[in-house]
This record gives sequence, C-alpha cells and structure tokens, in this order.
Amino acid sequence: MIEYPSTYIAKAIEELGRLPGVGKKSAMRLALHLLKQPNERAENLGKAIVEMKHHVKFCKKCFNVSDAEICGVCTNPNRDSATICVVADVNDFMAIENTQQYRGLYHVLGGIISPIDGIGPKDLSIEDLIIRVASGEIKEVIMALKTTVEGDTTNFYIYRKLKDFPVKISQIARGIAVGDELEYTDEITLGRSIQNRIPFDIQFKS
Amino acid sequence: MIEYPSTYIAKAIEELGRLPGVGKKSAMRLALHLLKQPNERAENLGKAIVEMKHHVKFCKKCFNVSDAEICGVCTNPNRDSATICVVADVNDFMAIENTQQYRGLYHVLGGIISPIDGIGPKDLSIEDLIIRVASGEIKEVIMALKTTVEGDTTNFYIYRKLKDFPVKISQIARGIAVGDELEYTDEITLGRSIQNRIPFDIQFKS
Repeated sequence: MIEYPSTYIAKAIEELGRLPGVGKKSAMRLALHLLKQPNERAENLGKAIVEMKHHVKFCKKCFNVSDAEICGVCTNPNRDSATICVVADVNDFMAIENTQQYRGLYHVLGGIISPIDGIGPKDLSIEDLIIRVASGEIKEVIMALKTTVEGDTTNFYIYRKLKDFPVKISQIARGIAVGDELEYTDEITLGRSIQNRIPFDIQFKS
Repeated sequence: MIEYPSTYIAKAIEELGRLPGVGKKSAMRLALHLLKQPNERAENLGKAIVEMKHHVKFCKKCFNVSDAEICGVCTNPNRDSATICVVADVNDFMAIENTQQYRGLYHVLGGIISPIDGIGPKDLSIEDLIIRVASGEIKEVIMALKTTVEGDTTNFYIYRKLKDFPVKISQIARGIAVGDELEYTDEITLGRSIQNRIPFDIQFKS
C-alpha cells in the first residue's frame, strides 16, 4: 500500500486514473505535473471539465452537442443545408469534420440500434431525422455509421423509413484504406470494395 | 480550422491537450469520453484537480507536499525518524515510496543546484536540512539525487555542509539496472558499478 503524501493528491490520481488509456503511473505523473504548474493552469483544466459538463446542451435540430439551442453547424449559413450526414455520436461527427471534406449538416443519432444493449429505434433520434426529411428541404441523406451488423441494421431501418421521401440516400464508401496492401486486407472488405467499385473518371473529378 | 460543436468542448480539449503526453487527438478523445460520463464522474475529476491545487501545503519539516502543517510520513510513528532520505522533488519521493524498501523520513529539496537555470543553494531547502541534522536526532542522511553534474554538485554541496555533524552520509547505489545486459550498459555506469562493488555477503543479508 503506497502512502500518498496528501489525500488530495491521492484523490486526483484516482480520478485521473479513471480516464481511458491512463494507468496508475500516468495518473501519478499527471497529478504531480499539475501540482507543479501555476495555480491557474490546473484550475483552468478543472474548470474547463466541470463547465463543459454543465453548459453543453444538445442541438434541437441535429442532436449534436452544442452551446446553444441550435448548434453552430446548423446555423452556419456557409454550410449546405440540403445535405444531412447521419452519424452515431459526436466522435464520428468530429472524425468527419477533421477530414474537412464535408460542408453539409449532420444528424446525430445518439447511438445505433443494438438489441443486445437494449437500444431500439425509439432510443435514438431517428423520428426527428424523419421529421427533418419530411420538411422537404433535404436533398440527400448520407449514412455514415460503422461497418457492423448493428450499423447495417440501423442503416436499413432508416433507409426503409426514408425511402418514400423524394430524397437521395447514400452511404459512405467502404473499401480498402488509403495506403493499405491488398494482401493484408480482410476478404469481406476487399470483396465489398470490388462490388462497390467506382468508375475511374469519378476519382479525378473530385 | 476544425469547427468544434461547442466552445466549452473546445476549451476542455485545449486544456487537456496541455497535459504532458496528451496530444490533440488524445485530448479530443478524453473530452468526448468525459462528456459521455455521468455528470458526477467528470465533476469529481475537475474538483479533484482544483482541490488538490487549493489544499496541498508543504510540510514544515520535510518540505514534501502535505495536507497538514506536518506531513503523514513525518508524523507516522512506525517510520524510522533517525534516517532522512534527501530527494529533489515529490516525484522522486513517490518513486522511492513505490519500492516499499524505505521506512525512514524524507527531505524534499525542491530541486537541485543548477546555475544554468539560476537555482542556487538558497533556493532549495538545504538550510532546513542542516537544521534538522543539527538537532542531533538524525543518524543517517541518504542522498537520492539524479546522476547528473547538477545532482553530483548538490550531493557534494550538502556533503560539505553536513560532514562535521556526527551523522552517516550515504548515497543510493548507482550501477547496472536489474535485468540489464553488461554489454549494453554505458561505460560510465559500468565503471562506477565496478568501483562501488558490494561485498558478496551483503546482498544476502538484506
């Protein structure tokens, strides 16, 4: 049993150690680092975490995290408001934003349909997506969910709900990753990338 | 320029990204993880960091971090109060405590003598160490500073200040690490480990 010199340090190490990917040794290193920082440095971090939890709302339109009732993406006049990209959660939203390749709006489901985890369509913001599409302002819905049985189930469920609206429904391309060797790619991915092959000239247009 | 969905999240990512070993991507992952946790989880972390900075004092005896005027190690009746281990900072204290091989007291210098960084003997708690030794209650002072020119300078400075007191002064053994190959050990370390060789029977006594 290690005797920490201070219960406050012990508490900070315990809480830091709960972060994903932070073990006991890293937590200790982080706590002692914060202890050596000027007071406002550590306080800013502590406050930033507490305030994030207190102030972050969910956008009433796209259900992404937001500071206001309607998020900055939904209210941005420079974005293409006729296209919606459907993602499972805010991590996937950030991943797509990081590519800087998409300028439309989003719809954050809050998860995917997963009977094993007790998550059904009613637990997600699917009904709200249908209302957005039914408004008639949307031209294309891009499904960007992960490539699992649950992802495909959710894709198919939403597809069936939307297919009678005058809206184009697409899904992000699945295939071999940029830089990947063919021989090391699993057969399902490689098989799909052959099925979903793209006409050669399309690649040079974008 | 990435458009974060919330300025509070952006702020939390910025502050988390200032931690040592946490890059932009990890900071984002940590922030989004905290966002998904129950409110009290994230709040506990934020509060633990802020409270650690607010409440942690320095022990008036050994200058280690402490909750009280005198720290838990100094007041622990089960520890050998006649032995002092001199360390540069709280990290080194924790490293030695982790070994569970030492049951004496400590003295935390608050750094080491380093003219290049403008740190002289007066900036450290060396004078207080001399006062502790002068009290006559101390039988042994173990120097546990790092193996650099600055560490050796500090060792020597303290040795000269203490050598006239009736106290044994030792320094932690430097040599090849447990499990290390001789052929890959640098020549200075290997040379020292030969100079400071230990009689064979001592190793079996401890």
